[in-house]
Amino acid sequence: MSHQPHERVDIALAERSYPILIGPHLLEDDALLSEHVHARNLLIVTNETIAPLYLRPLETALKQRRIASVVLPDGEQYKTLETLSLIFDALIHERMNRDAAVIALGGGVIGDMAGFAAACYQRGIDFIQVPTTLLAQVDSSVGGKTAVNHPSAKNMIGAFHQPRCVIADTDTLHTLPEREYRAGIAEIVKYGLIYDPAFFAWLEANVEPLLGRVDTAVIHAVRRSCEIKAEVVGVDEREHGLRAILNLGHTFGHAIETASGYGNWLHGEAVAAGMVMAVDLSERLGWLPSEDKARAIDLLRRFNLPVEPPRIGAERARELMGLDKKVLDGKLRLVLLRSLGKADVVGDYSGEAFAATMRTHFDTVA
Amino acid sequence: MSHQPHERVDIALAERSYPILIGPHLLEDDALLSEHVHARNLLIVTNETIAPLYLRPLETALKQRRIASVVLPDGEQYKTLETLSLIFDALIHERMNRDAAVIALGGGVIGDMAGFAAACYQRGIDFIQVPTTLLAQVDSSVGGKTAVNHPSAKNMIGAFHQPRCVIADTDTLHTLPEREYRAGIAEIVKYGLIYDPAFFAWLEANVEPLLGRVDTAVIHAVRRSCEIKAEVVGVDEREHGLRAILNLGHTFGHAIETASGYGNWLHGEAVAAGMVMAVDLSERLGWLPSEDKARAIDLLRRFNLPVEPPRIGAERARELMGLDKKVLDGKLRLVLLRSLGKADVVGDYSGEAFAATMRTHFDTVA
Repeated sequence: MSHQPHERVDIALAERSYPILIGPHLLEDDALLSEHVHARNLLIVTNETIAPLYLRPLETALKQRRIASVVLPDGEQYKTLETLSLIFDALIHERMNRDAAVIALGGGVIGDMAGFAAACYQRGIDFIQVPTTLLAQVDSSVGGKTAVNHPSAKNMIGAFHQPRCVIADTDTLHTLPEREYRAGIAEIVKYGLIYDPAFFAWLEANVEPLLGRVDTAVIHAVRRSCEIKAEVVGVDEREHGLRAILNLGHTFGHAIETASGYGNWLHGEAVAAGMVMAVDLSERLGWLPSEDKARAIDLLRRFNLPVEPPRIGAERARELMGLDKKVLDGKLRLVLLRSLGKADVVGDYSGEAFAATMRTHFDTVA
Repeated sequence: MSHQPHERVDIALAERSYPILIGPHLLEDDALLSEHVHARNLLIVTNETIAPLYLRPLETALKQRRIASVVLPDGEQYKTLETLSLIFDALIHERMNRDAAVIALGGGVIGDMAGFAAACYQRGIDFIQVPTTLLAQVDSSVGGKTAVNHPSAKNMIGAFHQPRCVIADTDTLHTLPEREYRAGIAEIVKYGLIYDPAFFAWLEANVEPLLGRVDTAVIHAVRRSCEIKAEVVGVDEREHGLRAILNLGHTFGHAIETASGYGNWLHGEAVAAGMVMAVDLSERLGWLPSEDKARAIDLLRRFNLPVEPPRIGAERARELMGLDKKVLDGKLRLVLLRSLGKADVVGDYSGEAFAATMRTHFDTVA
C-alpha cells in the first residue's frame, strides 16, 4: 500500500524537529515509511497484545531493511528497569550500532520504554514512534519524554529524547478496548481546558462522533491535540516552565494511580478525576467561574470518564503527591486554570482551598 | 580549610560549560565548594574503598546543606543497571527533587554511574564530579560521558550529561594503589600521542617525578590532560567526529578487557596495550615512523605499563571488537596516528595491515 492521505503536524525543535503523521493505514504505507524511516537496521519494540495485530504488517511495509523485534509483556506494571534490560539485550544480541533505530509499536508504556532504551543505548540512537492507542497518539508519543517507573514513583527514571517521527495510524484505534479509548479522550479534553476554548467547544459538539470513532472526528481531535502539544513543547522542551501545564490533573492523578496500584486505574481515568480536582481548586480560588467547572465535569461525564477519585484519604494522597516531580523544595506546585482554556503553574495558592479540595475528593464522607 | 591555591581549566560548552578545579586539599575546601556547589540537597555517591577515606571530610566541607550518601561496592563488575538502582532508591528514599544534585566521589566507575543516575533521575538533575583516581581526574570525570556496562559489552547503556563542575583534589592520589596510579598514566600518555608532541616530550622528561607523585608534576600532567580533553570535547561534544580520537587504543583495549573479564586488566592497562597495537598498525600503514613507535612503547614501558595484550587469539579479539560502539555498519573504524601528536579516525586502512597487527599481538606464537 502506498501514500495514504494523511495530516501532518510539525514539532519545531531546531535540529531535533520532527513530523507527526496522522491518518488511516499509515503503518502499512511502505512509501510513507521509506520517506520517514532512514535507518537500515531496526529494532521494533512492541507487546504481546499489539504484536499479533500489527507487527507483521509493519515489518512487511518496512521491507528491505534488517528488522528485529522484541515483544514485551503488556502493562504499566512492566514499565521497569528490568523490562528495559530486555530491550538492551535485544539490541546487543542483534549487534545494533549507533546507526540503528528503535521503533516503538504500541501505547504509552511501549513508547516510554522504547524511547528511553533508544536514549541510553550507546548514549543515544534514533527512535520512531508508531503509537497504537489514542492516549499515545495525542500525548505520550509526542514531546520526547521517556521513562520507566520506580517501584515507589512513576516516571522517575528517564530522559528527554525526541523521536525522528511519529506515525499515528488512526486505524489502529479500531482495535482499542472501549475503556482505553475513552481514557485517551481525557487527555484530549485536557488540551481544550488548558489551551483552547474553541477546541473545548468543538469537543462538546462532537461527543457522539468521537465515541463512535468516526474517522474525520478522530483525525481532527488527534491533530488539534498534537498541534497544541507541539506549540507548548516548542516553547519549552525541557519543562522549565510552560510545558508543565500539560500536567493538568496529573499530580492528583499520580496519587490516584499509585494508591490504586499501577494499572487498576488507567492513566487517562486518573487524569480525568485529577482534572476535576484541579478545576475544583481553580473555582475555590475564584479563578474559574462555576459554570465552566460544570462544563468541564459535564464533558468528562459524557465521555464516560470518572469525575471522582477513589476515597484514598486526603493524608495518604498528600503523602503520595509529595514525591511528584513537580514538587520544588517541598512546595507543591499545581497546574490550575485561570479561566477555561488558560492554565498556569501555581505555587502560591491558598493552603486552605487546597485542603478543602483534598478533603472533599479524597476523604470518606463521615 | 578555605580557598586552597588551585589551577582551573574551563570546558566551553555554551550553557553546559563548567570548570575543572585542580589542586591539593580541594575536597576539604569549604569556601571553594560553596562557590561551586549550588544545590542545597545533595546525594554523595561513593564506594566502600573511598568512603572511609574521604566521605566525612567532604560532608564536613559541605556543611549547611542536606546531605545523604550511598556507598556502593567497589569494582567495575558492579557498574551495572542493578547497582544503578541503588542510587535511584537512595534518591527516592531521600525525596530528592529536581533541584537536588548528585556528587560522584570516587573513580571512573563511580563517576560513570553517579553521572548516569543524575542524567536519568527525573529526566536529569545536576551532578558534580569529585574524582579520586588519576584515571578519573584526567579522563572519565571530564566530558560528560556516563554509562553502565551490559554483561556482554562495556558502556553500552548511558547518556551524555555534563557535570556542573569537576573538583580534582590531587591529594587523593596519594592513597591510590601503585597499579591504579600507573594505569591512569596510560591516559595521560594518550593525550601526548593524539594531540601534543610537546606534552609527549615533557612526559618523557618527567617519568621520575610523575611516578614519585610529586605535586607539581602531577598537577601539570592533570591540567594539560584536561585542557586537551576540553579542547576536543568543546569541538565535538557528542562524538560525531573529532572526539573519537580520545579512544586511541580503546577498541583493542575493550577486547582485552572483555576477554579477560572486567577488572582483571585495569582499563588503563588495556588502553596501554591497545595503544601499542594502534601505533603498530599506524607504522605498518606507513604513517608513523618506526622511531616514534619505539618512543611510544618505550615511554609506556618506563611507566611500567603493559605493552603487549594477552594472547586471546586474533579471531576472538575481532569478534569482541565487533560489538564496539565505534563500528559503523560492520566497518571497524579505528583511531590511528598520522604522526606523533596527530590522531585520526580511519575506516579505509588496509585490511592486511590490520590482520597483521591482530595476529602479531593476539595470536599465540606457533
